Amino acid sequence: MKTRLYTPGPTPVPEGVMLRMARPIIHHRTEEFKNAFAEVNENLQYLFCTEEPVLTLTSSGTGGMEAALANTLCRGEEVITVNGGKFGERWGEIATAYGLVNRQIDVEWGTAVTVEMIRERLVSYPNARAICLTHSETSTGVFTDIKEIASAVRDEFDGLIIVDGITAVGAHEMRFDEWGIDVAVTGSQKGLMIPPGLAFITLSKRAWDAAEKSDLPSFYFDLKRARVAYEKGDTAWTPAVTLVLGLREALAMIRSEGREQVWRRHARLAAGLRSGLTALGFELFGAPPSNAVTSVLLPEGGSSFEKVMKQKYGITMAGGQEALKGKIFRVSHLGYYDDGDMLTFLHYVERTMSDLELTFEAGAGVSAAQQTFTSLLAEELPTS
Amino acid sequence: MKTRLYTPGPTPVPEGVMLRMARPIIHHRTEEFKNAFAEVNENLQYLFCTEEPVLTLTSSGTGGMEAALANTLCRGEEVITVNGGKFGERWGEIATAYGLVNRQIDVEWGTAVTVEMIRERLVSYPNARAICLTHSETSTGVFTDIKEIASAVRDEFDGLIIVDGITAVGAHEMRFDEWGIDVAVTGSQKGLMIPPGLAFITLSKRAWDAAEKSDLPSFYFDLKRARVAYEKGDTAWTPAVTLVLGLREALAMIRSEGREQVWRRHARLAAGLRSGLTALGFELFGAPPSNAVTSVLLPEGGSSFEKVMKQKYGITMAGGQEALKGKIFRVSHLGYYDDGDMLTFLHYVERTMSDLELTFEAGAGVSAAQQTFTSLLAEELPTS
Repeated sequence: MKTRLYTPGPTPVPEGVMLRMARPIIHHRTEEFKNAFAEVNENLQYLFCTEEPVLTLTSSGTGGMEAALANTLCRGEEVITVNGGKFGERWGEIATAYGLVNRQIDVEWGTAVTVEMIRERLVSYPNARAICLTHSETSTGVFTDIKEIASAVRDEFDGLIIVDGITAVGAHEMRFDEWGIDVAVTGSQKGLMIPPGLAFITLSKRAWDAAEKSDLPSFYFDLKRARVAYEKGDTAWTPAVTLVLGLREALAMIRSEGREQVWRRHARLAAGLRSGLTALGFELFGAPPSNAVTSVLLPEGGSSFEKVMKQKYGITMAGGQEALKGKIFRVSHLGYYDDGDMLTFLHYVERTMSDLELTFEAGAGVSAAQQTFTSLLAEELPTS
Repeated sequence: MKTRLYTPGPTPVPEGVMLRMARPIIHHRTEEFKNAFAEVNENLQYLFCTEEPVLTLTSSGTGGMEAALANTLCRGEEVITVNGGKFGERWGEIATAYGLVNRQIDVEWGTAVTVEMIRERLVSYPNARAICLTHSETSTGVFTDIKEIASAVRDEFDGLIIVDGITAVGAHEMRFDEWGIDVAVTGSQKGLMIPPGLAFITLSKRAWDAAEKSDLPSFYFDLKRARVAYEKGDTAWTPAVTLVLGLREALAMIRSEGREQVWRRHARLAAGLRSGLTALGFELFGAPPSNAVTSVLLPEGGSSFEKVMKQKYGITMAGGQEALKGKIFRVSHLGYYDDGDMLTFLHYVERTMSDLELTFEAGAGVSAAQQTFTSLLAEELPTS
């Protein structure tokens, strides 16, 4: 049986990347590595749409999130976070761990924070030094419009706009410099298509100024130290060498496809999958939807849906987390996927529905998806 | 040209491990991963000689060192560190970053701290809560006798004995429980024979008690959180999945060879290499020597020694760091090496000496090494 991964991290790793990583290991203080790292750095800037350095940390994305707060804030400062899912909640947990005051906005899981909510919170807490957002909330599949929020509050807010872009970078447009974001973080096993083990973070000039004043302790994740090394084409600590070399290949693929086209592809796959699932009678969960992952309510009589997909058809997807456990399943279209992968997924969904004796119109899923793909390919969906 | 890596991290990765890591990636919240992780955990305990959990962190070894201090100490507490090289110095840097008071012992780089020095320091600073040691100081190639120090001070010192075992675990005997150590750290790209990206840390009951009282901020490296996940067969954050799966293979190799035999092999390779280099007229640097890496003074007229070895013969080794830059070179025999690899190295040393018109007796290096190997294989060198 062919096995297929539809989880929002790890995401599938392209074959060429896997083989590159299987070559004999090299030392990181060599010309060969430095050349690879220089290319990686340039392509990361391209993907983030920034002139600022994008620093590579050997950690999961959570390490990058910790680095974002620990380097730019001072003990006792207030930060605004948004708990609309497990990853938004994490900003607050990190803030609390570092003795920051967490002015959390609670939004119903499955919905996104609005500009109005952020504005209200800024009025209530005028001393807040940072707003921490989640571009694509992986636990709910909800998209937050960072561009709109940044545009709305940038002029009136002189603190930091900090963005968890862990499942957004590569899936959604992200114009770091143009939008006026101060810190953005992503991880390796997401839109970057390599295995987990690296996090990436970029800071605006405003964020670097804040870093000069920060009094929170930091060593492994000390970004000033990381930047000094970066300027020399190096990392502060031994990097995950094989992952960096794999990343070089993966970023070359992204560069070759073009970032705008990569964003369009993600929008198209997401839309096609959603139309296919809807045509089969599924109800989607969460709005507005992320282009990285689609959350779907488990149907009545579908409690063994994930199990059948996995055991009978080799399809691994993600379940719901915490309060959403047993209520939703999540399907990734983040990274190394194309239209065919979505049709394949819908094929096994139909077979599983049949196994579970659920009601559906045969062929409706793939047909709806195909029509969506065709129409979007024709009109070249504008990136959002 | 065949290229060969003789650096003390990254060290060569066995072919079977590389190929395992090149297989399609799996999700970490699956039975398949949990089974692999359980085997890894058991074999890490075997290698550390401990019944305590050995926690896996996705970071370089430095992240493990930071976790060691940040989880077990309180702001303003005194720690004794030993600056006898770049990595010993790092303990002090981390301590300072976290607002601990660094009661540093300065020893000449190339020498080891003695029991007497530690005792004196404990008398001068009776409030010290931790002694931070470096089992194998990678920057100088010097071994510190942790067993002897722990045995000497354990009864009189109720603080923590914290050991950087980054280039020691797998190369030197390490009996965590029996010796009364409280924290030990290692990294993946060393004796464990996989690429960089993972750190490992184990804590004694005394250290876990200290962790309950610690008031230093910690999130990504929060070991209490890591332990909760560990008890469920999981990690707190997304682990570097491919590295963990590679580690399973590497640890199976170590288990199959037997830890005592792995330690003996490292002692034998180190002794053989040293005798070969000495027979060729080289002067060794640092004592007592580590079984992981051998430091050698660059000979007169040998300033391009490393360059010729690399460019003409494909041999990558490590130079000196900081004050030792341009004075020494360092050769790794840590991890996936055997006697033949040492003879190969000595062969290219002779050729390079010849290229540089240095004086030596032809064949003396490999002959001396071979005799050492034969005699040690015969007497089955006791582990040290």
